Amino acid sequence: MERIKGLVPAVFTPLKANGDIETGKIKPISEFLIDDKVSAFYVCGSTGEGPLLTTRERQQVTESYIEAAAGRIDVIVQVGHNCIKEAVALARHAAGAGAAAISAIPPSYFPLNSLAILLDCMAEIAAAAPDLPFYYYHVPAITRVDFDMVEFLTQGQEKIANLRGIKYTKPTVFEMQACIELNGRFEILFGSDEMMLSALTAGAKGAVGSTFNFAAPLYHSIISAFDARDLDKARLLQYRAVQMVRVLYKYGGQPAIKATMKLIGMDCGPNRLPHKTLAPTEIEAMKSDLTKIGFFAWARQES
Amino acid sequence: MERIKGLVPAVFTPLKANGDIETGKIKPISEFLIDDKVSAFYVCGSTGEGPLLTTRERQQVTESYIEAAAGRIDVIVQVGHNCIKEAVALARHAAGAGAAAISAIPPSYFPLNSLAILLDCMAEIAAAAPDLPFYYYHVPAITRVDFDMVEFLTQGQEKIANLRGIKYTKPTVFEMQACIELNGRFEILFGSDEMMLSALTAGAKGAVGSTFNFAAPLYHSIISAFDARDLDKARLLQYRAVQMVRVLYKYGGQPAIKATMKLIGMDCGPNRLPHKTLAPTEIEAMKSDLTKIGFFAWARQES
Amino acid sequence: MERIKGLVPAVFTPLKANGDIETGKIKPISEFLIDDKVSAFYVCGSTGEGPLLTTRERQQVTESYIEAAAGRIDVIVQVGHNCIKEAVALARHAAGAGAAAISAIPPSYFPLNSLAILLDCMAEIAAAAPDLPFYYYHVPAITRVDFDMVEFLTQGQEKIANLRGIKYTKPTVFEMQACIELNGRFEILFGSDEMMLSALTAGAKGAVGSTFNFAAPLYHSIISAFDARDLDKARLLQYRAVQMVRVLYKYGGQPAIKATMKLIGMDCGPNRLPHKTLAPTEIEAMKSDLTKIGFFAWARQES
Amino acid sequence: MERIKGLVPAVFTPLKANGDIETGKIKPISEFLIDDKVSAFYVCGSTGEGPLLTTRERQQVTESYIEAAAGRIDVIVQVGHNCIKEAVALARHAAGAGAAAISAIPPSYFPLNSLAILLDCMAEIAAAAPDLPFYYYHVPAITRVDFDMVEFLTQGQEKIANLRGIKYTKPTVFEMQACIELNGRFEILFGSDEMMLSALTAGAKGAVGSTFNFAAPLYHSIISAFDARDLDKARLLQYRAVQMVRVLYKYGGQPAIKATMKLIGMDCGPNRLPHKTLAPTEIEAMKSDLTKIGFFAWARQES
Repeated sequence: MERIKGLVPAVFTPLKANGDIETGKIKPISEFLIDDKVSAFYVCGSTGEGPLLTTRERQQVTESYIEAAAGRIDVIVQVGHNCIKEAVALARHAAGAGAAAISAIPPSYFPLNSLAILLDCMAEIAAAAPDLPFYYYHVPAITRVDFDMVEFLTQGQEKIANLRGIKYTKPTVFEMQACIELNGRFEILFGSDEMMLSALTAGAKGAVGSTFNFAAPLYHSIISAFDARDLDKARLLQYRAVQMVRVLYKYGGQPAIKATMKLIGMDCGPNRLPHKTLAPTEIEAMKSDLTKIGFFAWARQES
Repeated sequence: MERIKGLVPAVFTPLKANGDIETGKIKPISEFLIDDKVSAFYVCGSTGEGPLLTTRERQQVTESYIEAAAGRIDVIVQVGHNCIKEAVALARHAAGAGAAAISAIPPSYFPLNSLAILLDCMAEIAAAAPDLPFYYYHVPAITRVDFDMVEFLTQGQEKIANLRGIKYTKPTVFEMQACIELNGRFEILFGSDEMMLSALTAGAKGAVGSTFNFAAPLYHSIISAFDARDLDKARLLQYRAVQMVRVLYKYGGQPAIKATMKLIGMDCGPNRLPHKTLAPTEIEAMKSDLTKIGFFAWARQES
Repeated sequence: MERIKGLVPAVFTPLKANGDIETGKIKPISEFLIDDKVSAFYVCGSTGEGPLLTTRERQQVTESYIEAAAGRIDVIVQVGHNCIKEAVALARHAAGAGAAAISAIPPSYFPLNSLAILLDCMAEIAAAAPDLPFYYYHVPAITRVDFDMVEFLTQGQEKIANLRGIKYTKPTVFEMQACIELNGRFEILFGSDEMMLSALTAGAKGAVGSTFNFAAPLYHSIISAFDARDLDKARLLQYRAVQMVRVLYKYGGQPAIKATMKLIGMDCGPNRLPHKTLAPTEIEAMKSDLTKIGFFAWARQES
Repeated sequence: MERIKGLVPAVFTPLKANGDIETGKIKPISEFLIDDKVSAFYVCGSTGEGPLLTTRERQQVTESYIEAAAGRIDVIVQVGHNCIKEAVALARHAAGAGAAAISAIPPSYFPLNSLAILLDCMAEIAAAAPDLPFYYYHVPAITRVDFDMVEFLTQGQEKIANLRGIKYTKPTVFEMQACIELNGRFEILFGSDEMMLSALTAGAKGAVGSTFNFAAPLYHSIISAFDARDLDKARLLQYRAVQMVRVLYKYGGQPAIKATMKLIGMDCGPNRLPHKTLAPTEIEAMKSDLTKIGFFAWARQES
């Protein structure tokens, strides 16, 4: 797989009203995103509720997205699991199903006591799909696993032959920059949409995000303005993303982000526990807040 | 299932050198524990590395322990999972396999934002084995899910018909006491072996613990001394447990506790990642420390 | 100072309506507590809002309590401060004013990175009152400083000549017991009123607490029942304390505890920021809750 | 005071070998920094060990910096204290001594339970110097006080007449940007030197930092490159700061930063407890690491 540039949506897992997965919606969602010029799909991550699905469901969602992508764009599959053996099985399945890359969160039930243990875990998973690039998914706000990522890469390149980089979801752009500059070998995909301009300034070329699912045009505009060195425009566009994310967090984060898909006509259904599903009145209130900041005017068109 | 009195070991999952489960060892371990007069088995908990096993492996371990118990003592099966649907499947399987009760940790990947959500999760799991008593497994040091347990029971009795009680693993004995006294309906199994005497004093009748796997006679002696109101003896015996647990934590906690099984002749094999497995030199050093405190003289015989 | 047995109230700092200290109330409070047969006063701790007072105010409160005690009971003065130099000055002042012992919380603005640093801090403070016993005040829920206390004592006895023990405010009774048993040299004053019976069972002889300010008779009864080995009675009495503390925490903890003094006729005035002061309606609601559990029937008389 | 643009060093408090403050060194340090074209001094903050000084010492350091500045640049004085009354006294003193602005950390001994309480605390301090602008010092990694800063400003403008802005020390640039854009009234001084370029991109005009004490020329160059829209140059210069900060954190953070002053010929003496003071061998090792990354070639000259 070539180096990723641009926007990688962490895609949703569409669910039916009864909570079952609804693979039938994956094709239209994929077309919508490809029309939005995204660079790849990141499947079964936190946004995609991967840890809330059964192993078999994760495989089905993976297969559906790969089939829907139909070779037009790459599919990265998140396979992390509290049980490494399940993660290994998911990695093997993803490779067999045609994934372009593997990514994994660390196991997070028991505390991970050392960087060496983290590397052992990731090495075992990465080795299950040895021909695919591997991205560690660093999201300490959720996993509580928070080692120095420069050290992770430095030691990791000895232990994980196919280590390609990190999906880096933490606002510490300085550490992200140190990872990028380490030796030029690694690819760091930034994961805080509300700070994408910061990451671009620090050298990031690609980003994985949840709000790229419905606001890719806005983010494309930020990248264009940045590339044109029109920093005032870039800043104002980034501020739109900041306002949008503030509204989405006000209404509960991931469930609000999923509910926003409905507002733009791409209903992805409810959430699984322990997430809540937004009630219709909450969705209405959120819609009103989003309207107030101009979301429906600027989120879906480049400027 | 009758109310549990006495000691419930959180049993180990024996593993082969290659990390596969070794169900063949479950029979002798079970005989050993039944000889030690334990009251029930708690299967696939934290001690049993439940979250580190595949769903199928958890089912196999469950089946083996139930078969080994052969109706002589009750088997409680821990079925919690980040994916509620997997937990539900495990609960159904356990019920079908002859479990006496179900227990569950909460999902812990995403933060659990409210007690209502926690109750929704537990209600769904408990409903999958409606004829069996259900124990919530409260272990906030690991799960970070830490709601008031009196509230949990108060609201839980409305939402979970088969709610029997809590496996309570937190040193806050005052809250445990409030749970016991709430309305007399609930059974609280205390989970900090190193404070069992405190729990007895506060009204606990049963305990689930990892060190009951090899030191049940010591704990039986504490209960006897407590029942005889010989509090000086009880205190000194409890101090032995304190010293033992301090050594076990010095060598890494769960992996050291599992390694201790080898020292008493009931080898349970290595640990799964992200736990480490103690090296032979570490086991020797731990053995030496355990010898120093008299462990081999007093852990295995009542006094 | 002899070893402390029994109850040591962490006494309040009475404030005027305008927030100034009201030393005039210290005499009657002291008489009230001495009538309640407490063993010593613990001055300017968390309950006494010590860290919220100026250095000069802390000295005035100290002087007033020592004067009020008039040699009848010992006064322990908490002198900890983010600035060690201020703590040293407070320790010197307390010694000069006639304190029986010194105690100190660790500085807690910057993280304390090692046990060695903590010992250096405490050694400097203890050395400022070399003729008085020194108690480390261990309250990690507030200070976030949470080293192993057995190690603290083991290394501390080499570095702090006048180290007498620990005011131990953490529910981990097993560690408290290990401190008591370490070598018999140290005195551990337990600080979780709602678990006093647990601590007695583990060998504690004395306790420092905030609810001893108004419910000493209840706690005397627990000790008597424990001494008489009437554990059923002790447990039920302890449960009263548990219920009482649950109500007090429902209404905000320390400010509710201070407000309770008003309810028993010993008004200590408002709280300082960042504590809130309970509004009259909140006090009424709390009074109603306390009445419901029988507080006014059993808190103030031995049984 | 006009709006701050550019670099504001959080200045050190020079200490003698015996730990006493050494005000005699404040004049030459001030000249050095003014020569480095800094915009103001931030006195008695975390870098200046403010919370580790006595109230009287803080006043002396404040007076010395104001005297040394001699009206050439503004002096902002950090007056926060666990005791609001001490903070108020410090604010009054600073105003009387000629400070240009006041800033304060929140009290951090007891948890701050609500934004309303935080605002009450800050309002009381700010009101003690009503003619000076007030900056809240937001540094949740130290204080654990972490409310939404947009809400803080929104509600704060009603309660604190002289609220000017925030010293914002957290890597969440998106929130910082939302504060800047809120209504244009507020000034946000960014506090993470290793991410200054991110902050500039998001609209920050000024920054308060510890490494500006010795590397102001490097940071001036970043600002110049940013202003010239030479983002490649700006990124590479920012990466120098990232590398520098990584070395400084490897050697212990604040104590290493203070020790670096010695390496550039502006010895500020040892640290106060609970900080450690770097040993000569540690300073040598750090010097070697700093040399390796080119620090002595690029930190002190604009490019």
